[in-house]
Amino acid sequence: MKTPAPRETILSLFRQTPDGFVSGERISDELGVSRTAVWKHIRNLRQAGYQIEAIPSRGYQLQQSPDVLMPEAIQSGLECQLVGSRIISLDEADSTNLQACRLGDEGADDGLVVIADRQSSGKGRMGRQWESPGGVNLYASILLRPPVLPFEAPKLTFLSAVAVCRAIKNCTGLQPTVKWPNDILLNGAKVAGLLNEMSSETDQVHYVVLGIGVNLNMRAEQFPDDLRYPATSLAIASGKAVSRLAFTRSLLQELDALYQVYLEEGSAPIFTAWTELCELTGKRVQVDCNNLLIEGKMVGLGGDGALLVRTSAGKIESIYAGDVLPL
Amino acid sequence: MKTPAPRETILSLFRQTPDGFVSGERISDELGVSRTAVWKHIRNLRQAGYQIEAIPSRGYQLQQSPDVLMPEAIQSGLECQLVGSRIISLDEADSTNLQACRLGDEGADDGLVVIADRQSSGKGRMGRQWESPGGVNLYASILLRPPVLPFEAPKLTFLSAVAVCRAIKNCTGLQPTVKWPNDILLNGAKVAGLLNEMSSETDQVHYVVLGIGVNLNMRAEQFPDDLRYPATSLAIASGKAVSRLAFTRSLLQELDALYQVYLEEGSAPIFTAWTELCELTGKRVQVDCNNLLIEGKMVGLGGDGALLVRTSAGKIESIYAGDVLPL
Repeated sequence: MKTPAPRETILSLFRQTPDGFVSGERISDELGVSRTAVWKHIRNLRQAGYQIEAIPSRGYQLQQSPDVLMPEAIQSGLECQLVGSRIISLDEADSTNLQACRLGDEGADDGLVVIADRQSSGKGRMGRQWESPGGVNLYASILLRPPVLPFEAPKLTFLSAVAVCRAIKNCTGLQPTVKWPNDILLNGAKVAGLLNEMSSETDQVHYVVLGIGVNLNMRAEQFPDDLRYPATSLAIASGKAVSRLAFTRSLLQELDALYQVYLEEGSAPIFTAWTELCELTGKRVQVDCNNLLIEGKMVGLGGDGALLVRTSAGKIESIYAGDVLPL
Repeated sequence: MKTPAPRETILSLFRQTPDGFVSGERISDELGVSRTAVWKHIRNLRQAGYQIEAIPSRGYQLQQSPDVLMPEAIQSGLECQLVGSRIISLDEADSTNLQACRLGDEGADDGLVVIADRQSSGKGRMGRQWESPGGVNLYASILLRPPVLPFEAPKLTFLSAVAVCRAIKNCTGLQPTVKWPNDILLNGAKVAGLLNEMSSETDQVHYVVLGIGVNLNMRAEQFPDDLRYPATSLAIASGKAVSRLAFTRSLLQELDALYQVYLEEGSAPIFTAWTELCELTGKRVQVDCNNLLIEGKMVGLGGDGALLVRTSAGKIESIYAGDVLPL
């Protein structure tokens, strides 16, 4: 058996005492190290975000743990059949999608989840940047190996969107909306973004990575000035901090449940749920398709995931890429 | 400037003399090394496949160069607009597709070609093995970044197929046929296979890798016993050895020309060419689609690359994955 790290041993000692007090002597005995070494470990824990007070004659007291996303904490009691079969939680990643793709190339199992506290090169659609400060948000990538043809896989973007909306509703009571193809909005401002990537051969999907970035507790001053769209976070929109752990667990469970539906019934129920979450459904829209402007009424999603717009001439246009705005 | 390797210097000396004779003294002077060192370099060149004779009082004579695929030799005078913009030629690769995908992930330019003399883990479709002995065949992967949506990209398999058929015709005079989705046949036996892979996000292709394996000079005894289908090589079918260099150059030029057509006119002309190369066009076929058997007349390719089969009930079935056999 692997010996636990000193940090894990100390945290475990705190958890075992009802009042959270542990004497320095006790820690020193358990670890078999000097009191000076104990003090250094406590200092390291404080630097990692643990609020630990030293009360003379009683010892150390753990008053608050940081909202860290440890795999064991996420997985404990998680009700998932597949998603989260393995969870990797990193302090920092270039991008969780890149990490998940690398692991996918190396043969990682279906259901793997990669989470990072912060991203140094967070990716949005079309090579855009995704602002990814540490300690406040969720950056997660889920690796799936769906037994479908490559042209089916992009439809999973809508699955991510519905799962994120449900997790937001579960954790805040707020009802988000979706914006085609891959944004989640609260009060018209972007609160989450999706970036699905795929590796495939002609008639087989190697893997799909569902990349999900959700602004949880990000503060207004943490957003860059030059954002293309107004942005928000769950904390800004709801007025209170959201537990990253609770949100992550809720999201993985919603993703897992929807993926089981997808595997059994296909994308139709997902598309129905997405269309109901889309504020523009039934409204007049203008779509900028690479400088070709299409105007009409948004009627929903086609079987292939295209945005369907009925023009004034009565023709239904299928749109596969573009920016949609209300008219 | 980089100093050329001794080997390159010696080969360059041979090329500069009309009769191919170079004295050991001359080589020794040029390289600034002893006659013993020169002799060792000559021995290494012989081991690499160069036929070099030592004639007393005249020196060394290069009588024949091995059929190696050096980037400079392939590129010299190559008539391509994009394909082969950069060529990497490896003695061995796990798989040229894997190498090209890795380079694609790192941002390699459109048109990159990766060639390997042999592959240690040559890949066929659906994770099958592709027999890849050294010195006799062509294993090449072409990286393209087509400005199309992900569901368009699998159509490029047909482009590879047509290009391989044309290169075979150019170099041997033999007329191959194509088998849906990705095989090239000579006299009913498999002579080449294609494995296209893609990395994409929902509405953007990162890159496509066209993997091409062609059995050029492989001998009958080099094929494994347990092949799923009868296999052949250009040398077996034509009765004479094929220059790997000439074939590679022809293939890259055909690929480049067809890719220009694809970018300008779309896949329709490629599909027409492919359908004409397919022996089963207009014939009765049976398609095994994951244990669902479909019988009917093969009528061609749909706009999305599906195999179109007209059943006896008159219905046209679009087939996206399966094994096709004549009835």
